[in-house]
Amino acid sequence: MNDINSKRSNILPFLAMDMLTRANNLKSKGEDIIHMDVGEPGFNTPTHILKYAKSIIDKKKVGYTESIGIPELRNKISEHYKYRYQQKVEPDGVAVTAGASGAFVLALLAVFDPGDKVAIMTPYYPAYVNALKALNIDIVFIQGESKNSYQPTLDKLETIKNTIKGIVMASPANPTGSIIKKSELKKIAKWSKVNKITIISDEIYHGVEYGKPSDTILRYNKDAIVINSFSKYFNMTGWRLGWIIATKNIINTVERLSMSLFLCPPTFSQLIAIKAFDNYDVLNKNVLIYKKNRDLLINSFEDMGFSEYAPPDGAFYLYIDVSNITDDSKEFAIKLLKEAGVSSTPGKDFDYNLGSRFIRFSYGGSHQEVFEGAKRIKNWIQTKN
Amino acid sequence: MNDINSKRSNILPFLAMDMLTRANNLKSKGEDIIHMDVGEPGFNTPTHILKYAKSIIDKKKVGYTESIGIPELRNKISEHYKYRYQQKVEPDGVAVTAGASGAFVLALLAVFDPGDKVAIMTPYYPAYVNALKALNIDIVFIQGESKNSYQPTLDKLETIKNTIKGIVMASPANPTGSIIKKSELKKIAKWSKVNKITIISDEIYHGVEYGKPSDTILRYNKDAIVINSFSKYFNMTGWRLGWIIATKNIINTVERLSMSLFLCPPTFSQLIAIKAFDNYDVLNKNVLIYKKNRDLLINSFEDMGFSEYAPPDGAFYLYIDVSNITDDSKEFAIKLLKEAGVSSTPGKDFDYNLGSRFIRFSYGGSHQEVFEGAKRIKNWIQTKN
Repeated sequence: MNDINSKRSNILPFLAMDMLTRANNLKSKGEDIIHMDVGEPGFNTPTHILKYAKSIIDKKKVGYTESIGIPELRNKISEHYKYRYQQKVEPDGVAVTAGASGAFVLALLAVFDPGDKVAIMTPYYPAYVNALKALNIDIVFIQGESKNSYQPTLDKLETIKNTIKGIVMASPANPTGSIIKKSELKKIAKWSKVNKITIISDEIYHGVEYGKPSDTILRYNKDAIVINSFSKYFNMTGWRLGWIIATKNIINTVERLSMSLFLCPPTFSQLIAIKAFDNYDVLNKNVLIYKKNRDLLINSFEDMGFSEYAPPDGAFYLYIDVSNITDDSKEFAIKLLKEAGVSSTPGKDFDYNLGSRFIRFSYGGSHQEVFEGAKRIKNWIQTKN
Repeated sequence: MNDINSKRSNILPFLAMDMLTRANNLKSKGEDIIHMDVGEPGFNTPTHILKYAKSIIDKKKVGYTESIGIPELRNKISEHYKYRYQQKVEPDGVAVTAGASGAFVLALLAVFDPGDKVAIMTPYYPAYVNALKALNIDIVFIQGESKNSYQPTLDKLETIKNTIKGIVMASPANPTGSIIKKSELKKIAKWSKVNKITIISDEIYHGVEYGKPSDTILRYNKDAIVINSFSKYFNMTGWRLGWIIATKNIINTVERLSMSLFLCPPTFSQLIAIKAFDNYDVLNKNVLIYKKNRDLLINSFEDMGFSEYAPPDGAFYLYIDVSNITDDSKEFAIKLLKEAGVSSTPGKDFDYNLGSRFIRFSYGGSHQEVFEGAKRIKNWIQTKN
């Protein structure tokens, strides 16, 4: 056979996918499984968007569009920044992309060359590590600390400022759900400007918060690159649509890259996403359900004596330390699935070194599901451990 | 400002996009413009697919899918190979991707590392050059010759076999529309196997042929990587869906990469693409219209004394040598647009050195449009030159 893989494609598969396959196998045998594994909202695309989609599907030609999105959608996103953050973002500072994944690939290629060093926090979203590796960008891991909600601090960044060209940060973060303190965000944003360090700020969970709304880094550093998405707050995962906010210079580069690497974001998704900003109420109601799920899950774990977890201020994840009952969270997750029918994600996906102490539970499903999941986990732990 | 672009993002924009912008400017001033610039079928998504789409849009959840596509669609693509080429392709040898663009990015990352040398024919599809550059793969350009329809030959490849790790070839090709001879395809396929050179075969215009149907390289080399798409023959451009056929080993690598770089192909597009194989007749009827367009365009140019063009055996392009009336085809194209209202693509997009002698006309539009376009071109050339 002459089918040798490249070196750069030698990246780790997600344990989450392994868990999903195991869960689906059990399901196909008739078992009743609660999914707390994948990072996907339980809600479908909002009804008013689907209604609009149905009304235009046989009326508009679904051809190629501009490589960074149709002007109408770029305008809507620009208006969203005014509404949500009272920030002025010009439409030509917006690029629509094939999901936040596409946004991340384009942003990385636009600003980093092979061998450049980029810092990310541990625990991390594993796709970020894999994309950096596949694009030959060197990673500087910063071990997050519980006392700082696993978010970056200026002190930590100061120690590596001469070695790195950029930082990828995320708030609310996956897998922890933690939100960076506003004062720290401000400090880091200004520091990065002075030190000419490129910040890529993953803001895809903005809107999914349980206290104060998250702030965008753009308020403090207009040169930062922001990544956002229609998948989480807007409940439009499968439509594969995200966006980048950046300087016009970077957006021009993203445009050229997108033309050749993506051609354009999915057209029909773009046409219907215009309506995504028409009804914030329905989206905010969904966030209230996540909050109910979160509170239930935290209470349930606290009852059992688990009190070490990242503060889930946003997103829909609980990243919990289970080292008081296991030193192998993968084995724990597999048993929890087999014996209690609850699928979760072992921490090793998010932290190669310390992850075997942690499990991530996603509570993005319906309240009924999360209620049932929490009950099963509790019964199982109390019986088995 | 701290927004410095990477070196690898220093790629050329498409002149085609510049022409499109100029054309749209004129259109917005009320001018009547005939588009023979973009490589897009004039036909919308087939009606039976749209009907199905309408029936399911508010019934199925549009969530994430497997990173290389839903099993049902991979099965359908596998069956297509049996129907169209009498070739056995297992569903696990298929990866569904975000268009052929996404397929190309994934295939390149799966098999090539930075600094690897990959050969492509000139004239080329410019996105391929840009993607190779952005992913730090070195390009070895092989100047195509009219006598070989600008397709690769074994003789040419023999001379560089010790320097290259792979070849990207396309048949029917863009911008020429030429199809490689079956005997040459067979020779190259076998030679690449012996010499352990990876072939990426762009087969996205398969089905759009005016003589014998194109053959897939898979018949002669099972280790080759085939890229195909729902955009051209299937008339589904804006849905951004393509696929890769490769060995299971490569598909596994593509799966891991796709998870991190794309997450998954657009879900609703996948759900409706299942129906794309239900009606080949309607697609073949569209190809007959392209053929009518092609014949009209060729006759019109021949009448005017232009006889140097690549043999347009497939796709919907005429790549024609206009050096008998201009040595600057970009200027020619701009004038043709301004003075005759016909938008075309200057050859420099496809051949940096010799392209100023050539123009690409796309005849993928309706017959009426191409008829009007050909008439305008003829009048303009006869009046002005």
